[in-house]
This record gives sequence, structure tokens and C-alpha cells, in this order.
Amino acid sequence: MVNFDIIRCGRAVLHVTDLEKSKEFYDALGFIETEADSENIFLRGLEEHNHHSLWLKKKAEPALEVISYKVRSEEDLDALAGFFESQQRQVIWMEAGSQNALGRSLRVMDPNGLPVEYYARMDTAERMLQRYDVYKGAKVQRIDHFNCMVPDVEGAHNYYIDELGFACSEYTAGEEERIWAAWLHRKPSVHDVAFMNGPGPRLHHVGFWLKDPMSLIDGCDYLAAKGFAPGIERGPGRHGLSNAFFLYLRDPDGHRIELYNGDYLTSDPDFKPIRWDLNDPMRQTFWGHEAPDSWFEEATEVLDVHSGRKRGLEEPLLKKRKPNFVT
Amino acid sequence: MVNFDIIRCGRAVLHVTDLEKSKEFYDALGFIETEADSENIFLRGLEEHNHHSLWLKKKAEPALEVISYKVRSEEDLDALAGFFESQQRQVIWMEAGSQNALGRSLRVMDPNGLPVEYYARMDTAERMLQRYDVYKGAKVQRIDHFNCMVPDVEGAHNYYIDELGFACSEYTAGEEERIWAAWLHRKPSVHDVAFMNGPGPRLHHVGFWLKDPMSLIDGCDYLAAKGFAPGIERGPGRHGLSNAFFLYLRDPDGHRIELYNGDYLTSDPDFKPIRWDLNDPMRQTFWGHEAPDSWFEEATEVLDVHSGRKRGLEEPLLKKRKPNFVT
Amino acid sequence: MVNFDIIRCGRAVLHVTDLEKSKEFYDALGFIETEADSENIFLRGLEEHNHHSLWLKKKAEPALEVISYKVRSEEDLDALAGFFESQQRQVIWMEAGSQNALGRSLRVMDPNGLPVEYYARMDTAERMLQRYDVYKGAKVQRIDHFNCMVPDVEGAHNYYIDELGFACSEYTAGEEERIWAAWLHRKPSVHDVAFMNGPGPRLHHVGFWLKDPMSLIDGCDYLAAKGFAPGIERGPGRHGLSNAFFLYLRDPDGHRIELYNGDYLTSDPDFKPIRWDLNDPMRQTFWGHEAPDSWFEEATEVLDVHSGRKRGLEEPLLKKRKPNFVT
Amino acid sequence: MVNFDIIRCGRAVLHVTDLEKSKEFYDALGFIETEADSENIFLRGLEEHNHHSLWLKKKAEPALEVISYKVRSEEDLDALAGFFESQQRQVIWMEAGSQNALGRSLRVMDPNGLPVEYYARMDTAERMLQRYDVYKGAKVQRIDHFNCMVPDVEGAHNYYIDELGFACSEYTAGEEERIWAAWLHRKPSVHDVAFMNGPGPRLHHVGFWLKDPMSLIDGCDYLAAKGFAPGIERGPGRHGLSNAFFLYLRDPDGHRIELYNGDYLTSDPDFKPIRWDLNDPMRQTFWGHEAPDSWFEEATEVLDVHSGRKRGLEEPLLKKRKPNFVT
Repeated sequence: MVNFDIIRCGRAVLHVTDLEKSKEFYDALGFIETEADSENIFLRGLEEHNHHSLWLKKKAEPALEVISYKVRSEEDLDALAGFFESQQRQVIWMEAGSQNALGRSLRVMDPNGLPVEYYARMDTAERMLQRYDVYKGAKVQRIDHFNCMVPDVEGAHNYYIDELGFACSEYTAGEEERIWAAWLHRKPSVHDVAFMNGPGPRLHHVGFWLKDPMSLIDGCDYLAAKGFAPGIERGPGRHGLSNAFFLYLRDPDGHRIELYNGDYLTSDPDFKPIRWDLNDPMRQTFWGHEAPDSWFEEATEVLDVHSGRKRGLEEPLLKKRKPNFVT
Repeated sequence: MVNFDIIRCGRAVLHVTDLEKSKEFYDALGFIETEADSENIFLRGLEEHNHHSLWLKKKAEPALEVISYKVRSEEDLDALAGFFESQQRQVIWMEAGSQNALGRSLRVMDPNGLPVEYYARMDTAERMLQRYDVYKGAKVQRIDHFNCMVPDVEGAHNYYIDELGFACSEYTAGEEERIWAAWLHRKPSVHDVAFMNGPGPRLHHVGFWLKDPMSLIDGCDYLAAKGFAPGIERGPGRHGLSNAFFLYLRDPDGHRIELYNGDYLTSDPDFKPIRWDLNDPMRQTFWGHEAPDSWFEEATEVLDVHSGRKRGLEEPLLKKRKPNFVT
Repeated sequence: MVNFDIIRCGRAVLHVTDLEKSKEFYDALGFIETEADSENIFLRGLEEHNHHSLWLKKKAEPALEVISYKVRSEEDLDALAGFFESQQRQVIWMEAGSQNALGRSLRVMDPNGLPVEYYARMDTAERMLQRYDVYKGAKVQRIDHFNCMVPDVEGAHNYYIDELGFACSEYTAGEEERIWAAWLHRKPSVHDVAFMNGPGPRLHHVGFWLKDPMSLIDGCDYLAAKGFAPGIERGPGRHGLSNAFFLYLRDPDGHRIELYNGDYLTSDPDFKPIRWDLNDPMRQTFWGHEAPDSWFEEATEVLDVHSGRKRGLEEPLLKKRKPNFVT
Repeated sequence: MVNFDIIRCGRAVLHVTDLEKSKEFYDALGFIETEADSENIFLRGLEEHNHHSLWLKKKAEPALEVISYKVRSEEDLDALAGFFESQQRQVIWMEAGSQNALGRSLRVMDPNGLPVEYYARMDTAERMLQRYDVYKGAKVQRIDHFNCMVPDVEGAHNYYIDELGFACSEYTAGEEERIWAAWLHRKPSVHDVAFMNGPGPRLHHVGFWLKDPMSLIDGCDYLAAKGFAPGIERGPGRHGLSNAFFLYLRDPDGHRIELYNGDYLTSDPDFKPIRWDLNDPMRQTFWGHEAPDSWFEEATEVLDVHSGRKRGLEEPLLKKRKPNFVT
């Protein structure tokens, strides 16, 4: 039985190589800049009351530094640390104040080699939900989920559910009922994190939630008018899996961002995970075009929280087949 | 400390006088009829996987029989029963099967005299989320909240938070900081239940969630084409409080239904309840027209779960002022 | 047989008392400012390729100076002048350059006493149709129509059709088949000008076309966030007549602006004008709330093109009844 | 100088091989079936007041029988016949009543070998514009344009403008300023007909107008739920050229249908045709994905109005390059 309470996905920390370019791109999506200096940009969505959900750090190479989950309280952090240590999984404590706007946090590598962080407190910022006069582009509302490509999806599925207390909303399985991809949540939406079978660990994308489908169309028009049309990688379209009305973008460093509308409520304990067959064509694309190869092949490499260096990639346990990569 | 887990608002049981008329009205909103006979209609929204969220019973007079909350497990029902008994609040057990499609349930009068029910299990039904070919009218997705007019809002606010484990997202307060209206939730949305100061106990409305703003406009057009335009009581408009894009309808028996899009995530423990001043004109109506008097004066009377008879109305503790009735 | 070709409604020239306030209001609607100085603001919609469709002049009192129609060529202006003179209707020639950005124009009082202008040439300006990065508020696309309150609607209807070559798309008639209101067009939309029975001549509103219904909702949110919610006089709603999805606003001087989406193609010679009965409740409001009294009572007074002074009001020929004022 | 008045594109007559399949497909788009028997289906959009804009005839092979334009009056038909005969272009008169619901018509091959028909009268049918209770799928409103692939675009451009009185809204030109594609209109929209350089004569698609962008998204969802997702060939996306928000579909016989929202008013005589460079990537796709090869290669073959047999294809005058095929 889990004795800590992870609330939701909280933020991603991405390394980017040109802050000016990044600023222009994320501004076009409608993010609010909470704070910025010559080395950092802190961004939040329009409804967010915390300081940031995306932290861009200027570095020599693009990479994911960490994906961070918010937990209920400081005690939950201690309990998590105890849990990881009981598993011989080494943790790093980041003291309060050592990261801008953040309380103390815990960093750890997950079983697939993803750099993960947990925190309980982040400074607050003005919610802009009703400041419609600053709405712009796709009018990004809030962070929704992380999607990661990992070698062992079934392992991740079991670990996040059994050990960390996540629930599964939907999953893809092949003929032998091995899990190829899984959508897992703590907040009662389709997901806080998804895992897809593939060479990894890598971050496939960070998903942000939009208030309605027209904001996604408005976002496309705005991006195109600002010269970012080439960054539209896939969509608009709808996934069968998750029912998402989606758009996938590549930022100036190639990090993939999903704009997302759709979702449904998953709070019921009797909600049964929805199974999709690996060969069901509507799983990937309920309608709209096939994803380009880049969507299947490219993803953001991740840093080891201990060494700060890039993790190497491992081949996936299951055969890599195009249709197994789903949103 | 609360030792039971209420998941969300689950269903309303309404008495109606003409099933045919009701059927036509709710069909126009896009509800799916799970089951019906000469005495009952069971309705669900397009994403709902449970049997119904609205049960219409044919009776001589319109009334609210009960509003029902879903709890996590059978054990939670026992814990709730223990809690109510410890408070000398008499409960009624309804055995599994005594209500169509429902497991055993517990009925009880709340401190303001509202008839409330708790249940853990309801039969499942096919989710129609991706059956876009049966989408119709306003394409109602799921039940969202109950809104009740009660004499003692501050009492309700404290009881639901301290004793039942709800959290407050937004509230309205007057000059002496007395709470005039409160929005309370278990699921991490703006509300599962709201209380407004007024003669009661009465059910002001049941709110249903729509997938986007255009569904609300489509709903208006569909309703008008079917002759239900006179049933549009208020809206479309936006509330400052809750940021809802709303439409209020009166069904053929005068029960009020809210169609609702907007909302935001309230899962964070550090989310501070938003305070609105009773005199802030944007609280009620961020934009759009003033509510008609009917919206302030009329509501559905409720039945006592013990006697089955209508509760009398009590005058509210706070002065009844037009602007204090908010969504 | 008409020997000139009026293309469409072209612009309105409004007197306003505070240019700063006006600028802020019209900017919130999404107009593009082509040019401005201490005495004037020239505004155009996002798809317009001409210099302006709205000219605001700073004056001591609010008024309509003139509503202007665009004609095909200089020869059409001469033909129009000849026609008016043949009717002993005195014309004023405004030489090219005497009005900013405009070729020569012809001003004349119409039979109901409305100040009307005709021109063939206006300077062009950059079309901003695909500059989605400057879209704002309601994203006004183009001028659509004038709506005027006049004493003799049937006279106006006959004159504009028989003498000026307009066609009727829809009209309202009472029991004796007298025309209470008429929608007339040159471009193949529902209208370039509408006339309603009432004390006049007055300008009831200038209508601007939006690209879709969501732009109207976005406009409401933007206006509210900028503090202009009290300027929302009526709507959103849908008219039965014209099928318009509408919003009526009052600018800082009380001039009424309609934001309008809907419309349909009226180019067919066999399109029969649609008759609405004066007592049909869906004519005014297909759905949505009754118009407030201000919408029926208040309108912009007009100046005489010869004297430059305000025209007095005449009582309407038909009884003034609330339901006869329709969009 | 042209002495006849073509009003607008009016209808297409398509040969299909399986009426049941066709019926299901076009019903899913929201067409209204005016009339049908074992050999024919007559379809109209929701705002159309004429009997049909699409006539499907059961035949052994898919083909375009004719594209038809509506003219102002019977006299215009006679004038058109006189014009064609003066050009040694043989016409066929179809007597009134020989085609269901149609007055007499004139058929002729145009210079590129397209089968074209002109008519003045068609029976009327109930406009369903405000029958929102029958709106379905993409809620097709009206026919908008024909798009044809022809060997000599510049010839077509000049002939339709100089001889038939069309105007050009937008066009694509290559380095030597030869016209690769042209958008031509009689009604003041972007087009009634477009010509693209390619092996022809062939019908590339028939375009139908939607009331707003959400209807296109709703159409995708409805089509997918009915199993027609594989028929979605391209889109949703936006063209730079015409600013259309588009979706391209293939019907069960491979005929291509465009669902279209966007457009702008083109009634001004001083509106300058917009030139797009053949190499401008935003012309084809302002945003969204590249068109699949099928969109460039496949189109509907046409019948000779005299022989009733398929026309052979001629190679285009200009080099066939992928980017020259635009909406």
C-alpha cells in the first residue's frame, strides 16, 4: 500500500540552446512568462497558480533535465525518499531555494532510466484565467502530461501502478497481451504520464491542455503567421486512444510539445482501463493523417540526475513497430 | 479526520409529471437513454460509463427525491453510516437491487434538510464518447454538480469541508465576511456541489458538463428548432465565479438544468479558495445579461428521505439579496 | 431600370467625443487602425483591403455624419447624381482629397432623412486576413450592414428596391401586410441596409461580420477583461430573421455596434424574400433573451448633409410596438 | 462585353456505382436528400432553396457527367447559346422537364474539354437553414465551387474572364509568369471554379461550404464514427491561397469532395487578384501536412456532352510539379 500522495505532473525542465528563439516559440503558444533572465525562462499556462510548469535552461545541448511531479506535502517527500531507499534507488535532495521558486525536492532515476523529481511546494503566481486580454495563440491553459519512450513499458506500467499509486486509463496490447503503451494518471484525467515502447529512456513530448478545439485551430493560424508552420509535426487530428484532439509541435531545439483538448474524467474506482489492439488503426488515428516518421523516431534525450550526463539508449523489449507508438 | 472517500456527485433523482415531454426535452440536450419504462427514464451523458446520472420518475408532482454521491467502496458506505449515526443523524439503507442498476445505498438528510444519498456501485453501460454519430443537441458529456439553495450556507460550507472532506474552490462573502455562497468539490473540478443563500432547502439546478463552448451554442439552436426556446432561462453568458460558460434551462416540470463548459483543475492542496465580494458585478455575470427574477426565486422543492413528503422552506440566515445568488 | 451599380455598404462616419476611449473600445473588438491623428481615427476589419470602414471624428456631440455606399465606377456616381437631380433631391459633391483616403463622393438625404454618401474609390491598405498574429478580441473581419430606424419603412423598402436596385432578403409584416421592417442588399448577403419602424431618421447600429461564432464568444471575454462588459447590451443570441448569431454593443458614445455571424447567400434571382409575422416570437429571438428597452428606444441621431445640423425626429407611420424592432 | 449573367456554380452531376454506399456517405456529411429512386439521388445543403446541388446517377463507371452554372434568366441562356455558336462551339439543348426538377438547359464542352451546363430555373425546396434538429455531420450548407485539372490553365483563365465574365481572386504563377492555377468567381466569394495545371480535363473536386470551423471538426468525428475515416484524404488544414480551412474527402467512388470554411468578400471592382509564387510553401499549406500523392494524381474523369463517352486526357502545357496543385 502506497503511503505517499503524488498529486499530478508538475513541470518539465528542458535544456535549450537559444533562449530568444525559445521565447518567441512558447510565447506564440500563449504561455505566460513568469520570470526570465539571460540563462532561464520560467513559463506557466493561463490557469496555473504556480510559478511555472516549464523551465527552459540555456545550455550547449538540448536535453531533458528532469520531469517533476507535485506531491501533497513535505511528509510525502520523506515517505517517497524512504520508499526509494528501501529499493536501493539512490535519491538526491535539492534544498529549498536551490531551484528558483521551488521548495525542497527529491530527484531519482526511475526503473527505465528517466530522471524524475518530486516536490511539494512551488511559489504561486497570478492566475490569468480571466485575463482574456492576454490570451494569445493556442492559449495554453495548463500542463497535462509527460509522454516517455522507454525500453520496458510493461515494467513501467506495473511499477507506477503498484509502487507509486498511479491508475491506468488506457493501454495498447499486442497479440501476446504484452503491454506496448500505457496511459497512467494520478489526477483524474487520462494521464499524467504515458509510456510507449521504443529506444529509451527518452522524453517523447510534454502535453499541455487547451480550453477548447478552436484554441488549437487558432494556435495553428497564429504559429503560421509567426513563421512556425514548419514546426507543426502532426495534426490536427484525433486519437482513438484518449479521444484527444491533438497537435504536435517541435520547438526550436526539437523538443516535442503536444497541444491537447478532449480528455474525460477518470476518478471512478470502477473505471476499467480501455484496451486497444496494437493493430487497430483507429487507436493511433481516429481520423487525420498518419504520423510522419519523425514522430516515431525522434525524441528528447535525458540526463542522469546523478552524473548530469546523457543516458545512453537501450533497445526496447518488444519489437519496434510503427503502429505501437501512440500518443 | 475523515475516514471515508466520496468520489464525486453521481446522480439526481427527479420527479416529473409527464415522461413523454421529459423524454423529448432531455433527448434534445443529447442525453443517452439507458433504459425506460412507463414509470421511469434513466439517462446518462456521452462519456459516462455508469448506468445513469439522471433518473426521472413519473409522479403526481415535480420534486427532488434525492441527490446522490458516489463513494469509493462498500466500506466507505459503512464508515459514512457510522459517522451519521455518531451525529444522531438517522440513515436509511436501501438494499442492493431495490433501486434499478444500483448497489446498496445510504440515504440521509443533511444539516440544511437536503435529501442526500451515497452509493458505491452502479451498473455500467457503454461509453458513447467516440460514438459521434449519436451526438445530438448540446451533446451532454457528464454530470458535473448540484447547486442547492439553503438557509445556512456557512453551516453547509463548514460541515461539508470539516466533516465530509470537501474542499472549497470559490466563495462569495459580504461585508461581515459571512459566506453567502460556496463552491465545494471532491473531484478536482470547481464543484460537486454549490450552496447559495436563500429559502430552502431547494435544488436550484443540476449542472452537466459539455465538451466545448460550441456545443452550448449548438444546443441552443437545436432546442429552438424543437420548440424549447422558451425553456432557455438564462445565458449563454460567463460567470466570473467559476469561469463557467453557462446556459440555464427549465425542463417541462420547471427543474433547472445548467449546461456548463469552462472549469479548471483544483487538485492542488495549495490552491487557495477564490473570494468574491458580494457586490462585485462580475462575480455573477462576467459578461452577458442579468439573470431574470425566476432564476433567483424559483427552485425545485425536495422530499424528506424519511417521510417522503415535501420539506417546508426556511428563511435564509442572511438577508436575501439579488446579487447573492450566483451560479 | 437602374443605370448605376451600388456594390455594397462601405463605411460609416461617426462623431465621437473622446478619441482615446473610442480607440480603446474599437481596438478591443479587433479593428485595425489604419491611421489616426488628434481629430480622427480610421478603422478597418481584418479582411478589408480599403483604407477604412469606420471613421471616427472627434466632435462635441455624438452623431452619425453619413453612411456611405461604394459604387462600381466614377460613371456610376454621375448616373446617381443625375437620378437624384431628376427627383429634385439636392446633392453635394465632395471633391477627391477633401476626405482622407477617399475619391470624390456624392452626399444626399434619402427620403426618410438619412444622410447617405456614394463613392467609387478609396485608398487601399494591407489586408490582414492572414496576419493571425494581430487578431484580437472579436477579430472583426469587415463591415456588413447599416440598420436604420425610420418613420416610413415601406417607403424606404420600395425606394431602395425600385429606384436604387436593392433586393429584399427578409421582411416583417403585420396584419394588414404593411411592412414594419425590411432587410435589403446589393452584395449577395442578407443585407447592406435594414430599416425598422420607429422615430427617425436614426442609425440603430452598424453591423460588422465575424469569421465564426467562437470569435463572438472570444470577443465577449476580451471586452469583459478590458472592462467593457457594461457595453454589452444584448446577446449573444440568434435572430430568427437573418439567422444571425449576434452581439450588440454600445461604444463609449452610445453608438451601437452589432457583431454578426451567420448569413447566407442571396444571389439567386429566384430567392423569395422571407416573410416574418410581426407576432412571431422567434423572429426577434430564435433563442436568447428579450432585448432590453434601450435596444428599442435608443439610437444615434443623424446630421443633415446640407446644414450639418441634427435632423429632428418624426414619429413612425405604423404604431410603434416593441416586437416590431428586429435586427 | 459579356451580354449574359452567370450567377454562380449550381450543381454537379456525378456517376456513381453503388447508390446505397453513396447515400450513406453523403448523409454523413449532412446533406439533405430531396428525392431519390433506384437510379438517382438528389442532394442539397442546409441553406439551399433549390432542389439539388449534387445529383448522383447510378452508372457502371464513376465519372463527371457535367458541372452546371445557374444564369439569371432564360434570355441569358439564349445569349450564351448565341455566344457559343459564334465560336463554332456546338451546344446541346436539354428541354425543360427532360432532367428532374430542372428547366431547359444548355450543354457545351469548354475549351479544355470540360462538360459544362447552364440553366436558369430549378425547382425550389424547403430551406433547412433553421431546422437545426436535422443538422448532422459536417452540416453542409451549400455548394461553393468546382475545381478542375486542365492542360491549359492560362487559356481557361483568359476565356472565363474575357468571354464569360468571371473575375480572378487569386492565382499561382511560376518564374516566367505563366499561370499555373487560377481561382475565378461570379458570386463574390473566392471562387465558383478553379483551374489547376495537370493532365485533363478532369474534375479535381467539388467544394461545399460549411458554416464554421467546428462543423469541419464535427464532420471528421462523425465520419470516423461511421467508418469513413479512410475517406479523409487531406486535412484539416489551411490553405494560404484562399485562406480556406479545408478537408478533402473521397466518396465511395473516389470522387473528391472539399469541405470548406473561410472565404472572404470579393465584390469590389478594385480588388486586385492575389498572386502566389509557385515556390511559396505557404500557398499550398499555410499550416498542416503536405498533401498525399493521391491528391495530386487522382481526379474524376469527365464525359463528353456530345458522345457521352469519356474524354481522353491531355498532358498539361506547363511542367507538372507537385507544388503547383493547390486547392
